[in-house]
Amino acid sequence: MKTDIEIARSVELDKIKKVACNVGIPVDEVENYGRYIAKVPVHLINEDKVKNSNLILVTAITPTKAGIGKTTVSIGLALGLNKIGKKAIVALREPSLGPCFGMKGGAAGGGYAQVLPMENINLHFTGDFHAITSAHNMITALLDNYLYQNQASGFGLKDILWKRVLDVNDRTLRDIVTGIGGKANGITREAGFDITPASEIMAILCLARDLKDLRRRIENILLGYTYNDKPFTVKDLGVAGAITVLLKDTIHPNLVQTTENTAAFVHGGPFANIAHGCNSIVATKMAMSFGDYVITEAGFGADLGAEKFFNIKCRKSGLQPKLTVIVATAQGLKMHGGVSLDKIKEPNLNGLCEGLKNLDKHINNIRSFHQNVVVAFNKYSTDSEEEIAMVREYCEWAGVGFAVNNAFAQGGEGAVELAELVARTIQEKPSAPLTFTYKDEDSVPEKIEKVAKNIYGAKMVTFSSQANKMLKLIKDMGISDYPICIAKTQYSFSADDKAYGVATDFELHIRDIVINNGAEMIVAIAGDIMRMPGLPKDPQATRIDIVNGFIDGLS
Amino acid sequence: MKTDIEIARSVELDKIKKVACNVGIPVDEVENYGRYIAKVPVHLINEDKVKNSNLILVTAITPTKAGIGKTTVSIGLALGLNKIGKKAIVALREPSLGPCFGMKGGAAGGGYAQVLPMENINLHFTGDFHAITSAHNMITALLDNYLYQNQASGFGLKDILWKRVLDVNDRTLRDIVTGIGGKANGITREAGFDITPASEIMAILCLARDLKDLRRRIENILLGYTYNDKPFTVKDLGVAGAITVLLKDTIHPNLVQTTENTAAFVHGGPFANIAHGCNSIVATKMAMSFGDYVITEAGFGADLGAEKFFNIKCRKSGLQPKLTVIVATAQGLKMHGGVSLDKIKEPNLNGLCEGLKNLDKHINNIRSFHQNVVVAFNKYSTDSEEEIAMVREYCEWAGVGFAVNNAFAQGGEGAVELAELVARTIQEKPSAPLTFTYKDEDSVPEKIEKVAKNIYGAKMVTFSSQANKMLKLIKDMGISDYPICIAKTQYSFSADDKAYGVATDFELHIRDIVINNGAEMIVAIAGDIMRMPGLPKDPQATRIDIVNGFIDGLS
Repeated sequence: MKTDIEIARSVELDKIKKVACNVGIPVDEVENYGRYIAKVPVHLINEDKVKNSNLILVTAITPTKAGIGKTTVSIGLALGLNKIGKKAIVALREPSLGPCFGMKGGAAGGGYAQVLPMENINLHFTGDFHAITSAHNMITALLDNYLYQNQASGFGLKDILWKRVLDVNDRTLRDIVTGIGGKANGITREAGFDITPASEIMAILCLARDLKDLRRRIENILLGYTYNDKPFTVKDLGVAGAITVLLKDTIHPNLVQTTENTAAFVHGGPFANIAHGCNSIVATKMAMSFGDYVITEAGFGADLGAEKFFNIKCRKSGLQPKLTVIVATAQGLKMHGGVSLDKIKEPNLNGLCEGLKNLDKHINNIRSFHQNVVVAFNKYSTDSEEEIAMVREYCEWAGVGFAVNNAFAQGGEGAVELAELVARTIQEKPSAPLTFTYKDEDSVPEKIEKVAKNIYGAKMVTFSSQANKMLKLIKDMGISDYPICIAKTQYSFSADDKAYGVATDFELHIRDIVINNGAEMIVAIAGDIMRMPGLPKDPQATRIDIVNGFIDGLS
Repeated sequence: MKTDIEIARSVELDKIKKVACNVGIPVDEVENYGRYIAKVPVHLINEDKVKNSNLILVTAITPTKAGIGKTTVSIGLALGLNKIGKKAIVALREPSLGPCFGMKGGAAGGGYAQVLPMENINLHFTGDFHAITSAHNMITALLDNYLYQNQASGFGLKDILWKRVLDVNDRTLRDIVTGIGGKANGITREAGFDITPASEIMAILCLARDLKDLRRRIENILLGYTYNDKPFTVKDLGVAGAITVLLKDTIHPNLVQTTENTAAFVHGGPFANIAHGCNSIVATKMAMSFGDYVITEAGFGADLGAEKFFNIKCRKSGLQPKLTVIVATAQGLKMHGGVSLDKIKEPNLNGLCEGLKNLDKHINNIRSFHQNVVVAFNKYSTDSEEEIAMVREYCEWAGVGFAVNNAFAQGGEGAVELAELVARTIQEKPSAPLTFTYKDEDSVPEKIEKVAKNIYGAKMVTFSSQANKMLKLIKDMGISDYPICIAKTQYSFSADDKAYGVATDFELHIRDIVINNGAEMIVAIAGDIMRMPGLPKDPQATRIDIVNGFIDGLS
């Protein structure tokens, strides 16, 4: 089979205005970024159409080193639905340069289920990430300058809570000391960088209704505390307007196309392990304004992305998905069943059976939101018929739909079974309105405990003294009604990235808490998770190149 | 009179493909970035046409707090030449977000001589700066990771010469310590950020012939030295391909339009005080491929931008300008004549006369390159007839052309006198081939001395021990044939930013030397100049906002 990039190149792309026209987007409103990428202005969201569109969430079992292909299934499902005559649009997150050049090498689907032009989407795209990086660091520069210029007047901040960001995997920037080398270089202090997908501004972009709401949220960003224990915000710094100006184009969703020339929105890109992991609300709503079926994806396993999709994104936007699709693979399930990475391509029914416990836990979790579930078995060429049959039987036993997805190898044709199951399930038994894991009025520790116990399966939650200090601040600020966003390893239900399968009886330790007062959520950092990843010994960057005018190494 | 932004908004913009079509650029080749911005592929450069086009450099007297309006004159001259029936295109540098949000608030011309859409040009534009920032910091992350991953094998670098960059004014990032907080956070070391316009990658972009040449230069970037005193480059790191992929779109010049809908290229943006200060060679050549007259600008005073334009850009590209225009203002000259900032709007013939010494020195400097000179007197509403007459008389005495430019208030109509003078001068006495200030085969200290003495007027040059250490490395590497790029304050011929007028008898101290082995030049840092600027007490960012859907505070 051809590589992802060979397939991407073999597709004859439609001009993006044609793609827009095909789903009824007024082409005069479409702003081109090159021939095949466009921004669609946010004012085209039609709330009536949003109400009548069928939203489908695609999530997955706990990821392993085997890979899952959640984005591929999401795109494949959209292709399959279009294939059976439904008007379907997929809404995805934008890839980050950090993982693209670090571990993964790209995040635009795979095989015959990709969003295109994949090179541009994986690289600078429409500049949204860069604008967020700029805006975030501009605030920090203005804040440090404020402290520096006002030091003679005795002004200062007791605590500085705002960091910097870069869209790169760089462990050496996690903890740094800035302002050394003499007094002209500012005030010396401890500081640090997160990766751009962890920026509060990324979360704000993904949760904002429009530019006005974005500005309001930028104003509210908490930068630190004065010596009188007063919160100090971007509004206090007097630069909310300037920061909004830097972000003015980011609010408009990005339109691209699939390998079968159907419309796809790719907009916003927080990770689900260190942030809330969903594409923007405006992109989902834009897709729903022009599509009868909209497939959206939440990052990593359902304990991370799906939980945050429901408890944060749906809670804040009022979105009501009709169905949740959980992606599982035989290889992934086998790893959860104790099979080692080098053996996962061999048939192993015992290992697979054991691994089904991971899927089972995720299904129960999704059902706790009152969502109906369908399992998409994402087929790899090494999967045996017996393995597929075992997962199918399990799903019958569990009372959830099951379909094999083979869009990677066959495009929309390979997702017809899944598409028909999804369409039928939505028609026959659409999900009830969402039930959330916690209520707005629960305290922040209660919210964290409810997610940790009822979704992760933790026995108890402990808080560091730093976390407790932040909990007190949250109470003092009167913002306990915000939803919570737990940052945790994606490789386990617990905070221990070696605990595959279904971790039980564990203690979840909250190391730190970050107040996202503009995004209106509380980020609780569990275990050792880092909001700035590192690079592996052999980074993907060493395999990326331009050969004969074509890009190699992005997939 | 209307503000810059009001004027910008009042102009009815042509679609960018129409602008391209008007000068003969094949519209199918034009890649839109929105309706009014495009990239024009670098392969459209036509070297035969480049040879026959008339290149005009616009430079200036030493800048003061009074401002000069060099970009406004450059654009105005293009408008004026078009007005008198010549096919003229202007090629300018891209603005940097640092100064836009710091001191200046924008850099796209002013009044009725602007490039448009000015908001986009002043903000993220086509993402060139962001791509450079990404590429630069990606190299650093990969380098730090290489050191971290290989520490057990005893590998390391004795000296690390590569920093990070951000497009922001942030003094606290000048000198930092990275990799603190434990062993998992990498190797602790001293590090720092420059502003993106000082990135060697910016210089590479501005000097590269095409993408292949860009890749070759990226490979050659010197990152540090091994313990065996061997140079360690991006090629050694194995990531030149990946970095070129990040930069693949940046090489294509950006096309926009003037306030009178004529074509303008805006591409590359090094500052002339901390870098070489010229727009890209490819943008200049692209403009010359489609325009009979091409106006290009070099940053700050002629001692900085023009010197580097001739000794670096023209030397490396073979470009031969037909004429140099020096922009002078009455207010600026008065400041050089000792008049204080609060008095420069009042007529003061004595101060003006004294200030003419600054202009005189610049004229002689430009003549040392065998360039013919025309002085463009950039008119402000407060200038008196007597003042204008005095500058005119001086120019007659000095034997250089003189014309008043009023394009700020009147657009192309206000630059007809200047345009006619420029066209006539080029026709009647085009400049002789360039003579450079130093030869390739001069040693680096000799090159620095020649520029310091013959252009700046220094008595002597001294080198710090750090600079001497770098000079030895340069000798050992066999790269003494590179041209030099002196980083120096823009406010004086000397390195003392308080020494207005014509500084004499001064010592120029070279504090540090940076090897730009990819850009193929040696950066010598003189005096206190910082390659990462700071923000003022009252930054422009506090005045930037969106009001009724329109951006305020960029001008």
